Amino acid sequence: MTQISSRDERLAAFRATIDNLDAALIHILAERFRTTKAVGAYKAANDLPPADPNREKQQVERLRKLALDADLDPDFAEKILNFIITEVIRHHEQARS
Amino acid sequence: MTQISSRDERLAAFRATIDNLDAALIHILAERFRTTKAVGAYKAANDLPPADPNREKQQVERLRKLALDADLDPDFAEKILNFIITEVIRHHEQARS
Repeated sequence: MTQISSRDERLAAFRATIDNLDAALIHILAERFRTTKAVGAYKAANDLPPADPNREKQQVERLRKLALDADLDPDFAEKILNFIITEVIRHHEQARS
Repeated sequence: MTQISSRDERLAAFRATIDNLDAALIHILAERFRTTKAVGAYKAANDLPPADPNREKQQVERLRKLALDADLDPDFAEKILNFIITEVIRHHEQARS
């Protein structure tokens, strides 16, 4: 009985950590989309090209390096960045239409 | 000339914000995977089932609500959580084999 309860406490503690990290993740993503929305509006207003392949290449390289240093799979870091960028492009397209 | 330079500064400022948010994102994800790795080891050692559908349902509902409050598309929040959970499951399967 005691063992089960102590197990639950341990699991509950892990889950509290995950929940806090997920809340941080959501708020960082919200702020990132606020920023890319502002960038999209700024680029449209100033006739700047919407995409910048050199910038994107630098972002991927930087994030892969950061991921390696933080012991996160760099392929996963690149995949999640691409996932986010795809969503940013979808937002930009929706904003234009 | 001045206009272009001021444009570049504005864009550079946006990009510095995005780079900082992305670095935060990578480190939060690294910590999240460290935690889920510990959870996986803990569950395996204590004969706890690897998946918990009720917990996952609660996580999705909570994150959708947090996303709404932060003005982030809740569907996107759910998609990215599923993307991360898929990676966690892949890690657990690799760890088992």
